[in-house]
Amino acid sequence: MPDLMGALGRLVLGRPTREFAPRVKPRPLRIRYALPMLAPDALSSVAYAPDEILLTLAAAGLVGMSLSPWVGLAIAAVMAVVIASYRQTIKEYPEGGGDYTVAKENLGPLAGGLVGGAAMVDSLLTVAVSVCCGAQYLAAIIPAVESHTRVVAISLLAVVMLASLRGVKVLDNTVILAVYGFVAALGVTALVGGIEALAGSLAPSPSAGLEVIPDSGFDSGVTGLAGAFLLLRAFSSGAVALAGVQTISTGVQRFRQPKARSAARSLTFLGIACGTALVGTLVLADQVGAIFVANPAKQLRYVAGSAAALAGEPGEPVPADFHQDPIWAQIAQTVFAAAPAIYVVVIALIGLLLILAASSAFRWVPALMSMLAQDEFLPKQFYRRSDRRVAAHGTISLAIGSAALIWLMDASVTRLIQLYIVGVFLSFTISQLGMLRHWNAKLPLVKTAAERRRVISSRAVNAVGLALTAAALAVVIIAKFTHGAWISLGLVGGAFWMMVSIRRHYRRVAAELKLPTGDRTDLGLPSRVHGIVLVSAMNRATARALAYARATRPSSLEALSVAVDLARVWELRRGWDRANVPVTLRILDSPSREITRPLIEHITALRRRAPRDMVVLYIPEKIVRHWWERWLHNRSATRLTARLRHVPGVVVASVPWQLDPDEDRSRPNG
Amino acid sequence: MPDLMGALGRLVLGRPTREFAPRVKPRPLRIRYALPMLAPDALSSVAYAPDEILLTLAAAGLVGMSLSPWVGLAIAAVMAVVIASYRQTIKEYPEGGGDYTVAKENLGPLAGGLVGGAAMVDSLLTVAVSVCCGAQYLAAIIPAVESHTRVVAISLLAVVMLASLRGVKVLDNTVILAVYGFVAALGVTALVGGIEALAGSLAPSPSAGLEVIPDSGFDSGVTGLAGAFLLLRAFSSGAVALAGVQTISTGVQRFRQPKARSAARSLTFLGIACGTALVGTLVLADQVGAIFVANPAKQLRYVAGSAAALAGEPGEPVPADFHQDPIWAQIAQTVFAAAPAIYVVVIALIGLLLILAASSAFRWVPALMSMLAQDEFLPKQFYRRSDRRVAAHGTISLAIGSAALIWLMDASVTRLIQLYIVGVFLSFTISQLGMLRHWNAKLPLVKTAAERRRVISSRAVNAVGLALTAAALAVVIIAKFTHGAWISLGLVGGAFWMMVSIRRHYRRVAAELKLPTGDRTDLGLPSRVHGIVLVSAMNRATARALAYARATRPSSLEALSVAVDLARVWELRRGWDRANVPVTLRILDSPSREITRPLIEHITALRRRAPRDMVVLYIPEKIVRHWWERWLHNRSATRLTARLRHVPGVVVASVPWQLDPDEDRSRPNG
Repeated sequence: MPDLMGALGRLVLGRPTREFAPRVKPRPLRIRYALPMLAPDALSSVAYAPDEILLTLAAAGLVGMSLSPWVGLAIAAVMAVVIASYRQTIKEYPEGGGDYTVAKENLGPLAGGLVGGAAMVDSLLTVAVSVCCGAQYLAAIIPAVESHTRVVAISLLAVVMLASLRGVKVLDNTVILAVYGFVAALGVTALVGGIEALAGSLAPSPSAGLEVIPDSGFDSGVTGLAGAFLLLRAFSSGAVALAGVQTISTGVQRFRQPKARSAARSLTFLGIACGTALVGTLVLADQVGAIFVANPAKQLRYVAGSAAALAGEPGEPVPADFHQDPIWAQIAQTVFAAAPAIYVVVIALIGLLLILAASSAFRWVPALMSMLAQDEFLPKQFYRRSDRRVAAHGTISLAIGSAALIWLMDASVTRLIQLYIVGVFLSFTISQLGMLRHWNAKLPLVKTAAERRRVISSRAVNAVGLALTAAALAVVIIAKFTHGAWISLGLVGGAFWMMVSIRRHYRRVAAELKLPTGDRTDLGLPSRVHGIVLVSAMNRATARALAYARATRPSSLEALSVAVDLARVWELRRGWDRANVPVTLRILDSPSREITRPLIEHITALRRRAPRDMVVLYIPEKIVRHWWERWLHNRSATRLTARLRHVPGVVVASVPWQLDPDEDRSRPNG
Repeated sequence: MPDLMGALGRLVLGRPTREFAPRVKPRPLRIRYALPMLAPDALSSVAYAPDEILLTLAAAGLVGMSLSPWVGLAIAAVMAVVIASYRQTIKEYPEGGGDYTVAKENLGPLAGGLVGGAAMVDSLLTVAVSVCCGAQYLAAIIPAVESHTRVVAISLLAVVMLASLRGVKVLDNTVILAVYGFVAALGVTALVGGIEALAGSLAPSPSAGLEVIPDSGFDSGVTGLAGAFLLLRAFSSGAVALAGVQTISTGVQRFRQPKARSAARSLTFLGIACGTALVGTLVLADQVGAIFVANPAKQLRYVAGSAAALAGEPGEPVPADFHQDPIWAQIAQTVFAAAPAIYVVVIALIGLLLILAASSAFRWVPALMSMLAQDEFLPKQFYRRSDRRVAAHGTISLAIGSAALIWLMDASVTRLIQLYIVGVFLSFTISQLGMLRHWNAKLPLVKTAAERRRVISSRAVNAVGLALTAAALAVVIIAKFTHGAWISLGLVGGAFWMMVSIRRHYRRVAAELKLPTGDRTDLGLPSRVHGIVLVSAMNRATARALAYARATRPSSLEALSVAVDLARVWELRRGWDRANVPVTLRILDSPSREITRPLIEHITALRRRAPRDMVVLYIPEKIVRHWWERWLHNRSATRLTARLRHVPGVVVASVPWQLDPDEDRSRPNG
């Protein structure tokens, strides 16, 4: 059915065009264009990280939630260290490649494979988290979406996938505009909100004033071991804000000269933007008293004198279908209470960026797969990512994997993030470890004292980075193991096992195929060539196969047919004599009407009699024009070919006859 | 994925064995064995035809149902004529082939195609009706089955299919025993019932005494136009009893000499058995007052003083889950009221025969498809029905089609029979018409007056047969059009269209490939042979391909590689020089990293430069041991081969290298 798939493919992808083949080296861009191209992944995490921090802290009630800016600051501090260390990575590996290259070159191919596996799983989750969060923001404008998040998220995913498959050209500019739009939307909202707060005119958010019931054990606030663990969990959830900052280290080649410096500077910009946005969001949320919890019906209760929007009996829990907007929707709603149109624009810009973050994963995965394929971690064909079909395989697999995760995790951003951060911090940690070894290896080689000092201080940055990211990874795994971290560990482990198996297979094959040095046995020619033409009827396709076989002047040549139907054998015999073919026609008997077995037996017998000879079997093949016509022709030949592959010393040569009733084919090689 | 399918196939079918290949000519059998082998299809219809007659007549209440023996007699009369005419068919076509051969030889291939299409649809329905009716009889022993008829019927179907796929050896003897068991069961039941009736000790059936509410319009019994139409409908439903009698005309070769006479005699036996059983059943059912209606909850009402088994308020309709046993179950229950064990045995024997009727369709369909394939109505490969895989395709398609029908028709025997009879009578009618033309053609050729009289009287039999079956077909189509006849007409039409398209395709191809008489252009040899070896790395597989290509001594030979990765090209070049290969290595540039296009362009250019030359492309192919390893090798070669098929004058020769790390392959032809 490959042609049916081909037809489907053309339907979805359009006909293959030359345009699609991307330049192997993309045109370098100025910072102002290159940075936004690489930023959506990192920026988008700012849209959901604050919600996760608040949601976790809400277990300790309003007291807990008021601690959120401090958690945000802690994350920003880690981010500063991580950014500092990636600046170093960029300078040391200006050709790009990021964590994978760092791990592979300093810790060996297996570490590279582990990072590669984590990156593949992360790309699934980037897509899943982004479209689910996008669906949440869509629900903030269109409430009907809320009850169908799963379907809406998968539909968004499908749209992004189709856009990637068709290689929509406009995407580059859209990304740049959307990133600036997103930054502007957040900036303006924060600015207006800040001014209103200073003027004292900032209204409380609609959810403000609801009572948040603390979980048992947190009645007296965030204290003791349980409190510390809660803060760690909030930290590890919010640490998702770091996801995507490493993207710039993989895209150094997109920048203009001086590439490394431009990329490093962009990374700093990006880090400042993300850090500020994270902390700023949490402060604003605190100001407007926005509330975000995991389970509204269980955790929220009406109190007397709460905001007008929330009419309810004091002391009663909120209803089961209570609608809870994401934090940025709540903030924008409060700040632009008087101008709902601006609110809609802000939400739309946030939603757009989230969708683009998903789409950037679709652009990035073929590159990742190509890199992994070059190192034999994936099937070789993925190396040629400019090949539309190969790229399509990657894209469709990514979409299916993400859709499956969305479905299984019920489109819950919170649950998906639990999976996401494991991979993110696994990559960070391995990368930091790699850089540490990189500096250790470099240290003995440097000459000047200044150079030496630079290496030592760089090493210190990575050591601190390693300590922080490893600690964060440990926290993530411990705090989140039962919340889903085991799933990600399983997925990463599975991807790693698959990649290592593929690599092992390729290496085993390469070892088996290696030419013995100094020995040229394999180049020795076979003694004789015995040609066989497979014949079922005397027609032009057969005649061509015979002519071609004779043209190769084999040592001996015979024509072979299997007697399935006596009438046909008779007709063949007659046609053969009439055409005066100068080749012996041998007819194999087949009492059971089988075709393949008598032929295989005949050829095996030939091979046994003269093991140093080579057999070339010429099969006249009718090439049909429609896929369904394949069921009508060459079925026996196809099966025979498949079986003969396992008989050593036999070459199968297909002599095609292109069926086309309109064309004149009287030329010998027509 | 063909190998995945292969693995699945082996799992279900077992490893291909020599045993499976059946003798092309089965051993001829005595009547006592041959007749039961061919009888299940015809006999099984006796199990459901009476139910359908009663069910239809129940629209006119008990008055209507009492007419059932007369309808049965009318059907038996038609059956007598049909049997008489098939006796003639057997004598005139002793080589078997049945309706299809008669239609093809006398009315042309298109009529044959129509009969073939009808036969294919009928085989689907034979299976569907038999297993559904089998499920009904199962429900008569195990009441829990009733609420899951659909699932039970499809499970039975799956069992029958698997048995056919594995070619269970025991089946032949089972069929013979089961047929005799079925006849004995019915005979004994009828005998005991008859004796009890004469002795006046025959109890009424459990359903006897229920009131059957006539449909509106039948309050005054079976009168007027509506009454006549009802009788026609009952007749056309019951005519399903004729299904299967033609089977013997297709299996003449299974009988011992004198084949035709034995077969004709068997057919008479079978006709008498079926006719007697049908009328006898209806008389017995009338005696015990057995009731069978389409919709118990709407048509049945309790009356005062009904049988003890049916306790209900007089005048109340029966409950919605009222359980209604098929007629033979009701009769056996009444006759053997004192011996429930015998009852169970009788029901089990009836059920077994129904299952075997389904299984006989599975044995018969590959033969039918082989016959159709020989006349190019189906893909050629079906001709070789001894080929296990080909037979499996037929078997699995039949099972899927039947399962779909069962599912769609809700496992309702009544609804399936509406579809069934259309095909049955369509075949009958065309066959009768064919025989009529046969006699007309024969008449002028006969010499003696006795011979002439025989032909004329035979023609009269077929003329009466044609009139009756054509009338029945018309009744069936008119009376049942909205009840489902349109679905069968559509299915038969679809099958016919497909078969005619396939035949047209084959004929067009044959015409295109026909060698011009007297002209031997196509046998002219190409001027020169240009050999190309496709190379991606310098290894033993490449070395073997080079050696083989050189052994065929082409006029010119070059090695070709596409530069996708510079490092690899460099390595290839070095290996090439080191191995001292006496063939020029040409490296094609590919800025877009594509492989197929540069090669196609290179080869097309070669062909343009020397159109009378022939190009042989040698592709070293790595033959893997597991199907999943296919994703890791030869992907570009496969795509290239597929594309090159459409370039005229190019022969693709695959030089296999069987990957196997354990084996030593230092021999040149390993």
